[in-house]
Amino acid sequence: MNREFRTRLASNDLHHIWVRNVDLTEDIVGKMSFGHVLFLLVIGRQPDAQESRLVDAVLVSLIEHGLTPSAVVARVTYSLVPESVQGAVAAGLLGVGGVVLGSMEECGHLLYEVNAETRRGVSLQDAIHAVVDDYTASGKRIPGLGHAIHRDGDPRAARLIAVAKECGRYGPYVEAVEELENQAQLAAGRRIPLNVTGVVSAVLLELGIPWSLHRGFALVSRTAGLVAHIGEEIEDPITPRLRSVIRGEVDRLDRS
Amino acid sequence: MNREFRTRLASNDLHHIWVRNVDLTEDIVGKMSFGHVLFLLVIGRQPDAQESRLVDAVLVSLIEHGLTPSAVVARVTYSLVPESVQGAVAAGLLGVGGVVLGSMEECGHLLYEVNAETRRGVSLQDAIHAVVDDYTASGKRIPGLGHAIHRDGDPRAARLIAVAKECGRYGPYVEAVEELENQAQLAAGRRIPLNVTGVVSAVLLELGIPWSLHRGFALVSRTAGLVAHIGEEIEDPITPRLRSVIRGEVDRLDRS
Amino acid sequence: MNREFRTRLASNDLHHIWVRNVDLTEDIVGKMSFGHVLFLLVIGRQPDAQESRLVDAVLVSLIEHGLTPSAVVARVTYSLVPESVQGAVAAGLLGVGGVVLGSMEECGHLLYEVNAETRRGVSLQDAIHAVVDDYTASGKRIPGLGHAIHRDGDPRAARLIAVAKECGRYGPYVEAVEELENQAQLAAGRRIPLNVTGVVSAVLLELGIPWSLHRGFALVSRTAGLVAHIGEEIEDPITPRLRSVIRGEVDRLDRS
Amino acid sequence: MNREFRTRLASNDLHHIWVRNVDLTEDIVGKMSFGHVLFLLVIGRQPDAQESRLVDAVLVSLIEHGLTPSAVVARVTYSLVPESVQGAVAAGLLGVGGVVLGSMEECGHLLYEVNAETRRGVSLQDAIHAVVDDYTASGKRIPGLGHAIHRDGDPRAARLIAVAKECGRYGPYVEAVEELENQAQLAAGRRIPLNVTGVVSAVLLELGIPWSLHRGFALVSRTAGLVAHIGEEIEDPITPRLRSVIRGEVDRLDRS
Repeated sequence: MNREFRTRLASNDLHHIWVRNVDLTEDIVGKMSFGHVLFLLVIGRQPDAQESRLVDAVLVSLIEHGLTPSAVVARVTYSLVPESVQGAVAAGLLGVGGVVLGSMEECGHLLYEVNAETRRGVSLQDAIHAVVDDYTASGKRIPGLGHAIHRDGDPRAARLIAVAKECGRYGPYVEAVEELENQAQLAAGRRIPLNVTGVVSAVLLELGIPWSLHRGFALVSRTAGLVAHIGEEIEDPITPRLRSVIRGEVDRLDRS
Repeated sequence: MNREFRTRLASNDLHHIWVRNVDLTEDIVGKMSFGHVLFLLVIGRQPDAQESRLVDAVLVSLIEHGLTPSAVVARVTYSLVPESVQGAVAAGLLGVGGVVLGSMEECGHLLYEVNAETRRGVSLQDAIHAVVDDYTASGKRIPGLGHAIHRDGDPRAARLIAVAKECGRYGPYVEAVEELENQAQLAAGRRIPLNVTGVVSAVLLELGIPWSLHRGFALVSRTAGLVAHIGEEIEDPITPRLRSVIRGEVDRLDRS
Repeated sequence: MNREFRTRLASNDLHHIWVRNVDLTEDIVGKMSFGHVLFLLVIGRQPDAQESRLVDAVLVSLIEHGLTPSAVVARVTYSLVPESVQGAVAAGLLGVGGVVLGSMEECGHLLYEVNAETRRGVSLQDAIHAVVDDYTASGKRIPGLGHAIHRDGDPRAARLIAVAKECGRYGPYVEAVEELENQAQLAAGRRIPLNVTGVVSAVLLELGIPWSLHRGFALVSRTAGLVAHIGEEIEDPITPRLRSVIRGEVDRLDRS
Repeated sequence: MNREFRTRLASNDLHHIWVRNVDLTEDIVGKMSFGHVLFLLVIGRQPDAQESRLVDAVLVSLIEHGLTPSAVVARVTYSLVPESVQGAVAAGLLGVGGVVLGSMEECGHLLYEVNAETRRGVSLQDAIHAVVDDYTASGKRIPGLGHAIHRDGDPRAARLIAVAKECGRYGPYVEAVEELENQAQLAAGRRIPLNVTGVVSAVLLELGIPWSLHRGFALVSRTAGLVAHIGEEIEDPITPRLRSVIRGEVDRLDRS
């Protein structure tokens, strides 16, 4: 018997589906919000009302930011294979990592390690100081800080921290990410404000979501945005114009 | 000037992000649920409370169904490239189409066409009769009906219809999908009950979501499920056992 | 015993790997070309020199066509996640279907069906006539014909047919695709010349490759092209310029 | 004028396509092998006969290794969405990174850095010694060494080195990877033989291919293998058996 092939996430019989042992039909559909069930699935227990609100706040923070490269990739791919919406969405999601949203995972990992340090008795200031020193020495960008457009501060960052406070979830991770901002700015001698991904990581850690799944929460959120972009591409496509902009130049290349 | 590169989904300036002209920081984060904002993004206006509840009901209906092939694909891929959660999720989503969830799109298209017929004066019975005849003649499976596990009826289907009624959204599309079930069963002479994807399509049409985006809603929902599967794979992996089951046989192949 | 988990494609023991029962180390590496081994893998026997040459001719025909939308998608994705080359290539491949290279599969299927007809005694002319009639009646585009840039004839099409002849592989499928061109042009009353994908399908059928794998050959070929595009993106990126072209307009959107 | 949107990889006019300024129809199709054109595309000049042979040797080394997790992912995905071969291949490629083939990139980078050291006058022994020390200190696995199945030595590694010698391409990178094997074994006090990916990286560097594209060469090769697996899945599927193995256990889960 292969008892290894099992999941605690869901089970079913002829007439029922259970999600984390909660009856999907009886107790979930029509009663719980999507964010509530996402928390239930990942954490294994139901969130309280404040946790549920905070999950939604995180998800909607990242849902849409205009014609990002990822959105363009999904729209162009859709125009090539309209029969395969999943291919277009997958293509768009494949850009969610490294440069843009990958920093979230790195920031979550960093805050997790800092928290482990402070539990061992190191002061928050010292723990963050060591982190900032390391990054400064190696010349790498500190994750969670700075934004190409919102150079005076990512408006989502401050708002998410405020919502976390309202929900009673301002804890050591949010405190740590704010200290990170402070010390990074001191070390650099200029303004490098917190961005949304840094705060999202801190808030997800406050909710008990391990850092290795933070990028996953961004993927849920971005999938919604990409579906909306595909809907707009159907009605009002950008791809033909994009192709002509790119091709225009290619076709005019001299062949001498 | 390339005025073609614009989107109505979002815009921003140094201190603001707007989603469909609603201020993300001021009016969305901490105030609206994920399902609410998904509706806003796709439809272009805010849902009322009943619409919002119905969007959530649809999303959570499809969120999780155990160790589906798609979940296995995401988990195996994660075990190969743990540094790339987006690759694992994308791999899992690439199986959301054709055989399993592709029928949703086909069902949505069918219900849309039936509705167009009835608006031209054809009776619902006649319009559905023609559809069932077509499918029967060509030997194809009618989308939205039947389920490999829930052979006596998909429990999610009945529940979603009930929620649609509670939300005042039992309209022509849900009526049509029920008529489709009736006539398909009469033609086949056996029970082929509605499944969740057929009802999801009908409900999404009631909400004004075009059929071409129905698969997209399934993708949002499945992304959440896949992230939870990746979380479980980290803690309690199935991949090593799966590899040994598959490889065990390969290694024993006779080489004579 | 799970004897179902086996493959005829490859096997191995501690010191050997066999591909289709040919010793990879002893007889393949350093001795056979990539096209040769691709044929061996898919067909299950080694090609002769002419078959091998024809496989290569097909693969290189499709390898590169400039800054196609697919290439742009791969390059943009690479710029977002440079740590995940596989994600960038996968994103580019996801656009290989439907509108552009999906027609190859449809054309291969069509030629396969026409060939089955002629084996049953129908004349080639009549079989093709029926096909052209069907497409004309439904208003759909006939696959394998026409090209947005090469409107007077795709130069790769004529060349591939010539190579097929040189290799002794001008047979019923190539004949059929030429008849398709003739009759389609007669029916339309204008020039709609064969494109490369139509001829590739015909040639692959002559080589015994089933139509359901034709798109797969295009994927092998395009993967090579996409890798070269990623190499160029590293040295001479187009993504920053593309982002500023797109974003420029977004940022100027009036917010009144 | 957007002169930034150009590529040196290919260009075209109404009657021609040029790949790296070589006429595709006149000089490539029917005359050059796939490996030859891949080198031309990536490097920008035509390879000589020995370089061309070595590219092919690399590509066929990695083309197939049985029912790998990646092959299983592609096959399962194909069974879910048979209309989208590109989705199945993309899903399979998404597992080509990290644990399995990602080490190739890391090994290529390492050999590149070692070579830079030796050019600055450091002896090969010292440069490799420092690398082995670093890895040993951090407890990480040295890339390019060891194989789960071929524990006494990957048969492809020795063969590829022999072919490189025959082609006059045994140079500093292959020497370095052999020194890496020696010193790693000395440090560990046990046999950790070179695997195929380590040698592939060394050989590709000898050919002038930058390490950042090494994984790309594996992708080209694996795409061919995955297409063959999809062909086999069509004729002799493993997915139904796999689903029943996994589901069997899920269905028997106690619900108490």
